[in-house]
Amino acid sequence: MEKEISTSGQIHSTLPSLTGGVGGGSLRAKIDNLNKPKGSLGRLEELALQIGLIQQTLSPSLRHPVHLLFGADHGIEHEQVSVSPRCITWQQMQNFTRGGGGVNMFCRQHGFELHLVDVGVDHDLSAYPQILNRKVTPHGTANFLYGPAMTEEQCEQALDVGREQVDAAFDRGCNIISIGEMGIANTSPSSIWMSLILDLPLEQCVGAGAGLNSEGVRHKLDVLRRSIEHMQSELDAHGQTATPSYLLRYFGGFEMVAAVGAMLEAAVKRMVVLVDGFIMTACALIASRLDPSFMDFAIFCHCGDESGHRLMLERMGAKPLLSLGLRLGEGTGALCAFPIIDSAVRMLNEMGNFEDNKITKYFE
Amino acid sequence: MEKEISTSGQIHSTLPSLTGGVGGGSLRAKIDNLNKPKGSLGRLEELALQIGLIQQTLSPSLRHPVHLLFGADHGIEHEQVSVSPRCITWQQMQNFTRGGGGVNMFCRQHGFELHLVDVGVDHDLSAYPQILNRKVTPHGTANFLYGPAMTEEQCEQALDVGREQVDAAFDRGCNIISIGEMGIANTSPSSIWMSLILDLPLEQCVGAGAGLNSEGVRHKLDVLRRSIEHMQSELDAHGQTATPSYLLRYFGGFEMVAAVGAMLEAAVKRMVVLVDGFIMTACALIASRLDPSFMDFAIFCHCGDESGHRLMLERMGAKPLLSLGLRLGEGTGALCAFPIIDSAVRMLNEMGNFEDNKITKYFE
Repeated sequence: MEKEISTSGQIHSTLPSLTGGVGGGSLRAKIDNLNKPKGSLGRLEELALQIGLIQQTLSPSLRHPVHLLFGADHGIEHEQVSVSPRCITWQQMQNFTRGGGGVNMFCRQHGFELHLVDVGVDHDLSAYPQILNRKVTPHGTANFLYGPAMTEEQCEQALDVGREQVDAAFDRGCNIISIGEMGIANTSPSSIWMSLILDLPLEQCVGAGAGLNSEGVRHKLDVLRRSIEHMQSELDAHGQTATPSYLLRYFGGFEMVAAVGAMLEAAVKRMVVLVDGFIMTACALIASRLDPSFMDFAIFCHCGDESGHRLMLERMGAKPLLSLGLRLGEGTGALCAFPIIDSAVRMLNEMGNFEDNKITKYFE
Repeated sequence: MEKEISTSGQIHSTLPSLTGGVGGGSLRAKIDNLNKPKGSLGRLEELALQIGLIQQTLSPSLRHPVHLLFGADHGIEHEQVSVSPRCITWQQMQNFTRGGGGVNMFCRQHGFELHLVDVGVDHDLSAYPQILNRKVTPHGTANFLYGPAMTEEQCEQALDVGREQVDAAFDRGCNIISIGEMGIANTSPSSIWMSLILDLPLEQCVGAGAGLNSEGVRHKLDVLRRSIEHMQSELDAHGQTATPSYLLRYFGGFEMVAAVGAMLEAAVKRMVVLVDGFIMTACALIASRLDPSFMDFAIFCHCGDESGHRLMLERMGAKPLLSLGLRLGEGTGALCAFPIIDSAVRMLNEMGNFEDNKITKYFE
């Protein structure tokens, strides 16, 4: 029915399988023979297995890490669903060019190349050459309280922005990508995706965003409920159902759709994908419905305090690496977890094994 | 009564207070004015506050990080309380000199200087000049099933080993110290300390160590229970009670007592102390009873799977940064968390504030 369906089908068919080449068995054997009690490096061992499978090697490496930060504004922001005004989106995008944002600090610390991409920020950012202009529209998405946030063509264009950025990173030698977002009000579409895709009551999916009080949360819940009802009546009128690709364009922000495009393309390119907080997890959720194999390439980095995030991760079978109460966005939770992923790869490459070290193998 | 009591009193009186100089208020104000929603960097903000208070500055720094790895053997190992034989202690100490251990990998990754200290490993390690010989006894502690693991003099000597190492690191410019251990059977004294100091049933404090089965756990529990009963009867005979300093020497391994000495001295020197897993948390517990101010300097890095670790941390009011299922020991859990602590310090020093960036201050 929807055009995006065919897109997702196509992506799925081109996604390489993790079962060929180096198998999990030989990787597991290498990990178990490192000089440590079996399983004693916990999550690092799971990460090493995953990354070895992604790269189809017993000696994986992380090269040229890139952080993509997509920014865009949301029509739903006009309904006062966020404590922050939309001007924060462009102000923060500008601020990131000056190096003083949380995301800048983490990128410097962990050696990530930062790419700022304007997919539809409601402001003219042309004075900032560090911000790549990929605006799908000049002012962001339409207000999904009254209809789809974007057209099919706009959705495809935003997906392409994400794919293009990943392809460019890949061509520069990148094999690990982290994705962040800046878009005031984007917890709203995230909550709706979570509720509709996982079939969970909306109340379990809506939280305080960046600081709403309880009255604000009630208002947000009401706006989102009415938005869903409106969409449902439109679907009913045409005898359609809400597919993931339909939900993508109906509620998505351009920065979120670009992130979904980036995630799916990164999987095609067999890159490790670092998934950030609530919003990026919602994008990963929809990406996993467009292509279930995406999950093989995703590392869920941080479980934030946003109500519903833990529940969403649980329902996706995703175990986040960190839980540090971060709720800044920008992809900071993903970046913060990078050293742990790096440790996992180093474990495979740097640790001695029992034979090397003539150590009694004391655990089976 | 016990000599160590006076030692602890002395340490306490020289421990500087965190209340003088730069106050929490000015640090909190600086953190709140960084360009992010208030509190949105979660645990990083708490760490920044703690480290700023430790260093009494609004712009802290982490300099010359050192990892101390104390190794020693335990008399109680003769009771088959561990799945691993005691030869693993010296084999692993040797292995660390070759760079192939988990601890080596983490030290390289995060720029820690690794110091290996033999406080009583049951093996001649003199062929390994990288291992500092500070043996309190040639074969480790006595078996605490039949009496104290060490004498008062030996306990003082082991404490001095820890203090000496911290002082040497401090003199080289170190202001952040991480401590690890290698000592087969050392979950046993850790469980006893936890049970007796926190007044918890022994069953809640005893776990599988590095891989005991349920029968092994039952045996370990029985051995530890009999050890406690024996100590209690000795105390009763002399009309004494079990003070923390008495428990320190009665059950402690030399590597653990050295760690306690290092922790207390690091606090005296106003250094940040990274606390590792179950065993190091037990050492931190006893350190905090010898000097409650120690907790101000401690960062609890990892909550492992060892039964009772989470409970011990909770009872200490300690919130671990990571929970990655690590149970390798060696201090790897502490080292693994270092980049998060580094991020917290970078946050204070590198992030812009609202005034700098002409950003609408959108959260109160």
